Amino acid sequence: MKRNLTNLVDFYELSMMYAYFKSPFRNKTAVFDMFYRKNPDNGGYVIACGQEQLMEYISNIKFTEEDIQILRNKNLFDEEFLDYLKNFKFNGTIRGVKEGTIVYPNEPLFTIEANIMEAQFIETILLLTINHQSLIATKASRIKRAAGDRVVMEFGSRRAQGYDAAELGARAAYIGGADATADFSAEVKFGVPSTGTVAHSFIQFFDDEFEAFKSYAETYPDNCSLLIDTYDVLKSGIKNAIRVEKEVLRPRGKHVKSVRLDSGDLAYLSKRCRHLLDEAGMKDCKIVVSNSIDEHLINSLLNSQNASIDSFGVGEKLITSASSPVMGGVYKLVAVKDDNGEYQPRIKISENTDKITNPGLKRLWRLVDFNTQEFLADYISLYNEDVEDKTELFLSHPNESWKKHYVGNMIPVDLHETLVENGKVLYKSESLEEIREFVQYQFEHMYPTELRFENPSIHMVSLSEKLFNLKQQMLKEHLEVR
Amino acid sequence: MKRNLTNLVDFYELSMMYAYFKSPFRNKTAVFDMFYRKNPDNGGYVIACGQEQLMEYISNIKFTEEDIQILRNKNLFDEEFLDYLKNFKFNGTIRGVKEGTIVYPNEPLFTIEANIMEAQFIETILLLTINHQSLIATKASRIKRAAGDRVVMEFGSRRAQGYDAAELGARAAYIGGADATADFSAEVKFGVPSTGTVAHSFIQFFDDEFEAFKSYAETYPDNCSLLIDTYDVLKSGIKNAIRVEKEVLRPRGKHVKSVRLDSGDLAYLSKRCRHLLDEAGMKDCKIVVSNSIDEHLINSLLNSQNASIDSFGVGEKLITSASSPVMGGVYKLVAVKDDNGEYQPRIKISENTDKITNPGLKRLWRLVDFNTQEFLADYISLYNEDVEDKTELFLSHPNESWKKHYVGNMIPVDLHETLVENGKVLYKSESLEEIREFVQYQFEHMYPTELRFENPSIHMVSLSEKLFNLKQQMLKEHLEVR
Repeated sequence: MKRNLTNLVDFYELSMMYAYFKSPFRNKTAVFDMFYRKNPDNGGYVIACGQEQLMEYISNIKFTEEDIQILRNKNLFDEEFLDYLKNFKFNGTIRGVKEGTIVYPNEPLFTIEANIMEAQFIETILLLTINHQSLIATKASRIKRAAGDRVVMEFGSRRAQGYDAAELGARAAYIGGADATADFSAEVKFGVPSTGTVAHSFIQFFDDEFEAFKSYAETYPDNCSLLIDTYDVLKSGIKNAIRVEKEVLRPRGKHVKSVRLDSGDLAYLSKRCRHLLDEAGMKDCKIVVSNSIDEHLINSLLNSQNASIDSFGVGEKLITSASSPVMGGVYKLVAVKDDNGEYQPRIKISENTDKITNPGLKRLWRLVDFNTQEFLADYISLYNEDVEDKTELFLSHPNESWKKHYVGNMIPVDLHETLVENGKVLYKSESLEEIREFVQYQFEHMYPTELRFENPSIHMVSLSEKLFNLKQQMLKEHLEVR
Repeated sequence: MKRNLTNLVDFYELSMMYAYFKSPFRNKTAVFDMFYRKNPDNGGYVIACGQEQLMEYISNIKFTEEDIQILRNKNLFDEEFLDYLKNFKFNGTIRGVKEGTIVYPNEPLFTIEANIMEAQFIETILLLTINHQSLIATKASRIKRAAGDRVVMEFGSRRAQGYDAAELGARAAYIGGADATADFSAEVKFGVPSTGTVAHSFIQFFDDEFEAFKSYAETYPDNCSLLIDTYDVLKSGIKNAIRVEKEVLRPRGKHVKSVRLDSGDLAYLSKRCRHLLDEAGMKDCKIVVSNSIDEHLINSLLNSQNASIDSFGVGEKLITSASSPVMGGVYKLVAVKDDNGEYQPRIKISENTDKITNPGLKRLWRLVDFNTQEFLADYISLYNEDVEDKTELFLSHPNESWKKHYVGNMIPVDLHETLVENGKVLYKSESLEEIREFVQYQFEHMYPTELRFENPSIHMVSLSEKLFNLKQQMLKEHLEVR
């Protein structure tokens, strides 16, 4: 049974809906864009994620009798509106990027075309779902890219911001590139491989560290991973791990698979342990580290300190995206259908130029090099512009018209799919494995400079000339009205 | 129907359980403490929160057939263990603080006494639940304390880290002191009052700002709140709000209840709006502000800039505790029952003194001034020490024995209740209103210096002499073993 999230809605969506309901405009169709303005962690991109959960939500909208009664008791709405809510469904159309798509600031990730009340209603869950999972997928991709070929395990459930944050966070982290999770429910629900060995408590439970290791090795002769920092890594932990190898496992033809460090100087200790393991003939024994790991610490351990690490357990800093815990996706009205069926563009003005929205019903294109498939730039056009057949374009800067850029020998790829059409979910989620591969494919076709952690270069996102001119004209009109 | 969160468990809990199951120790009883080491935001305290959800979880532990099958497929566990999991329940005892209790670093918030496998199993959800809700309740309390008598509304659902983070976050924020939430589901599920008015899209939908305001005022003559920054606050928004008052509402004997600013210079604009509203005879019209609000911005707006604000809508910075998004609660083994039924203390050693645990089965006391009920200090004793009848105590610093402090004329209050006894939930959740009152009561009885945002004074948490000596002795023994 799917979870019913219908009442998880900002109350203002309901109060606006009622205001529309009581106005002459209750049957109007409107268009909203979902976009964000700033990459988390001052990075170069975001991985759009959460589409599968959004589709589930759309299919399961249904107010309960209890919801309606609580709304009635607020004495704000009339019975006609409450009846309308009893049968409320989303009958609109959603176009947008598929799960795992790399996106950039100010691009319409999703465009929602629906009755104004329905379009308004889904704002809360759409933003909540996409903001959260995109944030975590993006953070995970940074951490995995820092780790390179080394394994990254997501270990954060105990410090996640709630149960969904643990489960959906594990899912998003896997999409972004993490190799496994600690959370077993993410395996049950989404097929993310779950993994885990021992905590310090297991070692402490025994009177003696060696006895603890021995007991674990006897239970898991084929999967023996030992946590070696409960008492003292070099004086005790690594020695006992080597003793278990020699006395318990080797006689059975088995081996210690890995040792884990969860505290202390990870660079120094990992190198010392590597040396001692190698000396003991345990070259295949892996070294796993955990403890406040993120992309910057991984970078420092591997590249500046030459640590001997095979695998990272990453907890709180991934599952909360601790260094940048908010993804600020927004949902803005961009057009209203008039009585002739024409879309009248709308714009949101702001004293801050970056916050002015791109008006009208639009499309999003990725301009791909014909030969190398490299991602040259993105291009936002009005919906009815002919872009498909173009092989070259002059790109304008979104705000500064004098900045022009020629792109040739390219193919424009339409990034929007029709996810929902007149209320019917058309989107078929790909498997997590497919989405993961798609993410990696995109990384391979982006400019490497966009992938830097420090001051990444900014992906060019250009407006079509028609869209640019429409925006300028609307800005001018608004200024004149004042 | 309560949610079954049984499979939301770190896989290592299961792999440890199996190792115990296959060892001679499967029937052993162990004691774990849950505590944390550092207050979020470098603050002076934490509000312990989430007990109600933890109790629900404990009552609903049940693996499904699907869970068991997925575990079987991992080829790590034998059928005897899988049978054990099929009927798995928590039969242990949990003592701990009631919801809303102010707590401090290194105090045992919860003490779990149970079969070693059962005690290990509940670690993940216990930490996840308490870490998350305590973090958000604490953050909300900081924001509410900065706002003083002004209203604080929690508006963060769209940027929460998942659905639970929105719902349980709204609950925790209310406990911490927020006055309302935007999230309607928090009202349905927990009775948190939900509220909300309009977004910019509503204003943009109309051809003209005044028409939008008029339409809203006609729908909500008794609850007319207008968002005035869609185009230009001073040139347009505030003027149209005043015009609605004069032309639409006053003729009906009604009034604009509030105006909201969601962008721009909130200090300057709020003062200008206050002046214009007062001039128009709208002294009762409130000014609400939102836009990246937290305790520091509120402090600056109210105390340094003398802004004219009645009410704050607080979003992402509250619901994610953005400036300190992780609460690092941990779960450590502190004792194991031996064959004679005696608890043998356990200690976790670390090169970092702060990370050494307090061994043994313990109690937590708040030493309260007999006359003023002021919270003088906290005191951690061994379980069987006679503390109840004391009226004076010499307090030792947890690590530095030469630091002593006399406390007299006091009453020791036992902060631990028996929440679960032999698997049966005894804890009766108080209403959110009662918990909120309890939180405020405690703030009134804490040293005001502990409530500062910058460099709060540290609440004294002392170990009893017996506990102190036990810890020193165990440390010494561990060092000698090396």
